[in-house]
Amino acid sequence: MERIRNELTDYRGTGMSVMEISHRAPQVLELLERTQEKIRRLMGLAGDDVVLFLQGGGSLQFCMVPMNLSAAGDAVDYIDTGYWAAKAIDTARQLGRDVHVAAKNHSAIPLALNVWADARYLHICTNNTVMGTQWQDIPASPIPLVADMSSDILSRNIDVSRFALIYAHAQKTIGVAGVTVVIVPRKTQEMIQPGLPSFFDYRTHAVASSNYHTPPVFAIYVVECMLDWLEQEVGGLKAMETLNKRKAALLYETLDASTLFRCPVPLGSRSMMNVVFDAVNPKTVPIFCQQARDAGLLGLEGHRARSGFRASLYNAVTLEDVEALTRFITDFERRYG
Amino acid sequence: MERIRNELTDYRGTGMSVMEISHRAPQVLELLERTQEKIRRLMGLAGDDVVLFLQGGGSLQFCMVPMNLSAAGDAVDYIDTGYWAAKAIDTARQLGRDVHVAAKNHSAIPLALNVWADARYLHICTNNTVMGTQWQDIPASPIPLVADMSSDILSRNIDVSRFALIYAHAQKTIGVAGVTVVIVPRKTQEMIQPGLPSFFDYRTHAVASSNYHTPPVFAIYVVECMLDWLEQEVGGLKAMETLNKRKAALLYETLDASTLFRCPVPLGSRSMMNVVFDAVNPKTVPIFCQQARDAGLLGLEGHRARSGFRASLYNAVTLEDVEALTRFITDFERRYG
Repeated sequence: MERIRNELTDYRGTGMSVMEISHRAPQVLELLERTQEKIRRLMGLAGDDVVLFLQGGGSLQFCMVPMNLSAAGDAVDYIDTGYWAAKAIDTARQLGRDVHVAAKNHSAIPLALNVWADARYLHICTNNTVMGTQWQDIPASPIPLVADMSSDILSRNIDVSRFALIYAHAQKTIGVAGVTVVIVPRKTQEMIQPGLPSFFDYRTHAVASSNYHTPPVFAIYVVECMLDWLEQEVGGLKAMETLNKRKAALLYETLDASTLFRCPVPLGSRSMMNVVFDAVNPKTVPIFCQQARDAGLLGLEGHRARSGFRASLYNAVTLEDVEALTRFITDFERRYG
Repeated sequence: MERIRNELTDYRGTGMSVMEISHRAPQVLELLERTQEKIRRLMGLAGDDVVLFLQGGGSLQFCMVPMNLSAAGDAVDYIDTGYWAAKAIDTARQLGRDVHVAAKNHSAIPLALNVWADARYLHICTNNTVMGTQWQDIPASPIPLVADMSSDILSRNIDVSRFALIYAHAQKTIGVAGVTVVIVPRKTQEMIQPGLPSFFDYRTHAVASSNYHTPPVFAIYVVECMLDWLEQEVGGLKAMETLNKRKAALLYETLDASTLFRCPVPLGSRSMMNVVFDAVNPKTVPIFCQQARDAGLLGLEGHRARSGFRASLYNAVTLEDVEALTRFITDFERRYG
């Protein structure tokens, strides 16, 4: 944040803010190229895998995925693991796709999948922010695998070769609202449907290097700052994963040892990003909320679609932040347990 | 820019950046509500006219306008006045609309229109950035009038009751890339097609107060800063129009008096926002370019789709900036004319 503040009125010696520079200026073209290259390097992508910076959030990708990878009436496969996965399914249905749900479970990651071999692709949401579940291992898929990684991209080291498409809005783990990263491997570029309106066709944005229409320059600049931090301060994705595992383990251990709180998510499904928990006795809820706020621990309320508590441990949350929370829980336990 | 810099790490006493606040937080809901209200007040909109903050730029609106206001196969009417108007036409055709071009002229605003009475709507681009033309008067239309005001919204006082829909990306006159303002008057809400995928339906975003998916909070915050400046420092749209008229008149008068440069745009079509001009003798072009750069006058090159020069006089350009340019042209004229 300090770097952004310092550079705000003078971007790399131009004397202008990055917000003021024309999207055709070499500085912006270089920003797009550099940021794409940094994502490629961090994730281990090949040189001909395309990285796009689009607008419209995950919601537009709920539309663009079926539009690009299937025709109206085609069979497509989705796994329904929660709030956002269900939205992706609704959207594919609205677009006239024959959606088959290979598995549905909102409280744990499903073990058995019933994938249609003739569906165009299988869509998963790798981390489910509301119910606090996460695919700890990427499922085997006989058909092209598409992943919404909006809430866990660049939080762990994954084998990108397993995916036919990856998309993620930036605001959870790698930046601010306003830009969505879409990774289209070379093999997938051949799957894209003919006759799409240009705006919806991934190839339009690929050919234009994400500059088909004015890109959200400031949001992309924030992503670049986060990538630099990930690479230079944290030390890359393996180091980030190690740190995120420690953060999550510390909090889950504290909750499992608690008599006042419990985590409802089974072991193999627990999210490193969103730790969901409940009070055993509902009467402690308002006291806990008030005291947490007083202690400066904000944002512990669950998503409006699920009551209870939720601690989000995205990349920007430090181990010290988690330690402060676990100390608070342990102390609360001593006083009220 | 200084206000943004000062508030960057502490938004209104929250101790957080506006980029870090949850999109469900009251601060963000209030930001959306306030910004919508300020646009309503500045433009003289009615309380039930909806103001949306969307992503995807003008390009997504090229899709959403035909999707919302017509069905596939329906007749729609467009006026082709330049680069962006032509893109809107291409997109409507790609979406299977029966596009009728009511008039086409890229070098002047057309005088005679051949509007189909049974087309769903008539689409115009009010200001044409590449060729430097602008609708000085809004054309009469027997069918609902839709306007792309991406390059002149809030630059002048217009009669909003004339329009069935107005859209504008923010980066030219009211903010930074990443947010698009769409104004959907109440009467138009009844025209919207049934059965649209939720993301593309204006009503989805209206019901959700532009928070259906995470809005581009930072870009909207910059828009609010610009609206405050427009209202409090400039004194509203009439004052802004007076200032913009003075700026443009000064530059056009200088060009019309020049023997080295000429403006190719006829009087009744000239844009207040983008003043396009050419060198009478091509040999003076590199000398003029070099000396302008040396004098700190940047961005005078024409759009890549048109050679020659272009001075963009958007709201943020001051009268003093224009005076510096006209002094430079007059001085250049004295030395080389």
